[in-house]
Amino acid sequence: VIDRAAILAVGSELLTSTFVDTNSLYITGELERLGVCVAYKSVVGDDRDELAVAIRQALSRVDLLVCTGGLGPTDDDVTREVVAEVLGRELREDARITAQIEARFVARGLAMPAINRRQAMVPAGAIVLDNRNGTAPGLWIDAGEQVVVLLPGPPRELKPMLADAIERRLAPRTSGLALARRVIRVTGRTESQTEEAVRSLYDTWARAPVPVSATILASLGQIDLHLTALAATQREVEAVLAAAAGEVVERLGLDVYSDNGLKLERVVGDLLIARGLRMAVAESCTGGLLASRLTDVPGSSQYVDRGIVAYANAAKVELLGVPQSLLDAEGAVNEPVAVAMATGVAARAGVEVGVGVTGIAGPDGGTPAKPVGTVAIAAVVPGAVASRTYRFVGDREQVKFQSTQAALDMVRRALLTARP
Amino acid sequence: VIDRAAILAVGSELLTSTFVDTNSLYITGELERLGVCVAYKSVVGDDRDELAVAIRQALSRVDLLVCTGGLGPTDDDVTREVVAEVLGRELREDARITAQIEARFVARGLAMPAINRRQAMVPAGAIVLDNRNGTAPGLWIDAGEQVVVLLPGPPRELKPMLADAIERRLAPRTSGLALARRVIRVTGRTESQTEEAVRSLYDTWARAPVPVSATILASLGQIDLHLTALAATQREVEAVLAAAAGEVVERLGLDVYSDNGLKLERVVGDLLIARGLRMAVAESCTGGLLASRLTDVPGSSQYVDRGIVAYANAAKVELLGVPQSLLDAEGAVNEPVAVAMATGVAARAGVEVGVGVTGIAGPDGGTPAKPVGTVAIAAVVPGAVASRTYRFVGDREQVKFQSTQAALDMVRRALLTARP
Repeated sequence: VIDRAAILAVGSELLTSTFVDTNSLYITGELERLGVCVAYKSVVGDDRDELAVAIRQALSRVDLLVCTGGLGPTDDDVTREVVAEVLGRELREDARITAQIEARFVARGLAMPAINRRQAMVPAGAIVLDNRNGTAPGLWIDAGEQVVVLLPGPPRELKPMLADAIERRLAPRTSGLALARRVIRVTGRTESQTEEAVRSLYDTWARAPVPVSATILASLGQIDLHLTALAATQREVEAVLAAAAGEVVERLGLDVYSDNGLKLERVVGDLLIARGLRMAVAESCTGGLLASRLTDVPGSSQYVDRGIVAYANAAKVELLGVPQSLLDAEGAVNEPVAVAMATGVAARAGVEVGVGVTGIAGPDGGTPAKPVGTVAIAAVVPGAVASRTYRFVGDREQVKFQSTQAALDMVRRALLTARP
Repeated sequence: VIDRAAILAVGSELLTSTFVDTNSLYITGELERLGVCVAYKSVVGDDRDELAVAIRQALSRVDLLVCTGGLGPTDDDVTREVVAEVLGRELREDARITAQIEARFVARGLAMPAINRRQAMVPAGAIVLDNRNGTAPGLWIDAGEQVVVLLPGPPRELKPMLADAIERRLAPRTSGLALARRVIRVTGRTESQTEEAVRSLYDTWARAPVPVSATILASLGQIDLHLTALAATQREVEAVLAAAAGEVVERLGLDVYSDNGLKLERVVGDLLIARGLRMAVAESCTGGLLASRLTDVPGSSQYVDRGIVAYANAAKVELLGVPQSLLDAEGAVNEPVAVAMATGVAARAGVEVGVGVTGIAGPDGGTPAKPVGTVAIAAVVPGAVASRTYRFVGDREQVKFQSTQAALDMVRRALLTARP
């Protein structure tokens, strides 16, 4: 039975001060769903000796080793070769893989460079995991009771390949217990306020037949409450988590925007679809990020009509109908301007919901009265106009993100509370 | 001489699917400035056995082991004890530390909980590193030629402590050489094409008095070439890397958009400022992401006038002046529409540079002739109109990102090659 894993990320760039291995987070989540726990994880560079030591080490400690990266075509991609060497397997070219790689190049009108042949080398006895999104195939290698899985580094290649391997090959070899997590997402409260409201639930959960454990995680503009449980079946563990999530929602009310890990832009989109409303946004300091987050959601063309990024004041007047006199009298960063932007963009688009965001993202442009991070936001929905001025802390990108988070949340709360 | 290090992060939360160890990035940067390279890094949970194995492993491979986390007062903080055990040192309470911890509590009007005494336990022979910002002291432990350093997990406690330890204790023990890195960023080539063009430089670099090593890293929409070197002084190593970067630029020409790690949106912004030009963008499938990336750059209000996110066809006609007849005859996704969007937004904004992006980000909306990922992009700059149709691979967010990358790159190349 496989129940202990190690994750080994290979790549010299992951040992610099700028890149961090995030594949292991995704892999951890997938393994946990099968009750396989990650005992440790490591990062090594593109270095044969270090990699060989790390692989031997893993084989002495865990049942399953998942390696990511180092499967590319160039000289510094050494994972395939070192794994074959440590396991004492010969490497042979797999003609079917060579043909597939060649076909990918031909489809783009290119000839396959000779070095890409290296990606078709397979250790004896390995099972090839097809790569739908790239040239490097993955490998599943049984070594006695243990398993070594090699996956390519790019997430879009790794993810579908891992899903396949887990379903078809790993699931039958695990304990059969199901571990699940559920994330409850909260706005409008601090981490400690959230903890105070739900803390008394923890004891009951810990003593239940299927215990639920909880962790609170604060990030920019939101609080996530992570619930985890382990039970005999996926169905049972999910029912337990759903019940626990229900108890949290009872305590936190409207401050919970998703009881199941959805993004805020998706929650807002679902509300708009349910009510048959369309939306337009007018942005200054967020510079298009609000429109971009809204349109990250598949199907958002159903309800997003347009977005106007009116950086210059002239653009606010011309494109949104903000009165020049208002800008002259009050400046560009205040709630009346935000409301004029929101109503202006909705009226010109002929849609029911409008948002206006105007502020100072920094690092320059702040004043004593309106320091960097001052952002006025307005939302118009049928039956209500909401507006508020925020003072966000952080750098330019953080102020932008928090502003879009507050704007989306304002629309959500207005839609849920307004009486049209 | 200490020149090889390992970093070990301790904490069960760092083995979940949500938290990532970022302390190691900071530590890596600090060590590299002294020419100490990080051979590998690992994360283990709050588990005595795993931690003991990881420490023994590190002592067999590197000169310096930096451990972070697990120095708190609770039962699951085991780093101090396990390190003492592995090194065969006795733990003793240091009365000076107890007094310091007690004083921190008293200053906040609190009594010191008994469990905090654990933080005053010190292995025999260890040097205590004071903690200016918390209760857990760090430890510097000489073990023969090797060194083990224990640092607390919270970054604001770790950083000043590491700076002190490096300056006072580590610097005198290192080679005195300075290590530096430089990232060259490339578009318009695949990873293998980039490697083929520069590979012959590798041998020359490897044999030079100050050798330069290179790694190629492919990510969405770009290739990064990382150069690393080690020399007697920071000045010398930077000169060597600058010369190597120059040789790469000679080979790759315009495909290099930054020879020093800048983002593409920043490079485009710098070009616009240098030429005194202003810009407006018209987006369909990228939904505001292009404007958002441009305005992520501090000071971008100097050259970004406006962005129009024209999702609906009516918005393309009304806001950008795209001829209705063109949309009727050809549909919304083609180069003439992209050009009309680019020229339309620039003309209406009264600026010199315009971009139009129209395409199918998916997952729905594709047709056999225009599958998901088909994106038409146009750029107008003084003296040139460029346009091209791309077929990007990936999910919705990946298509959006690659489209903005291609659009920014089109503007960059047009500005560099057009004769106004």
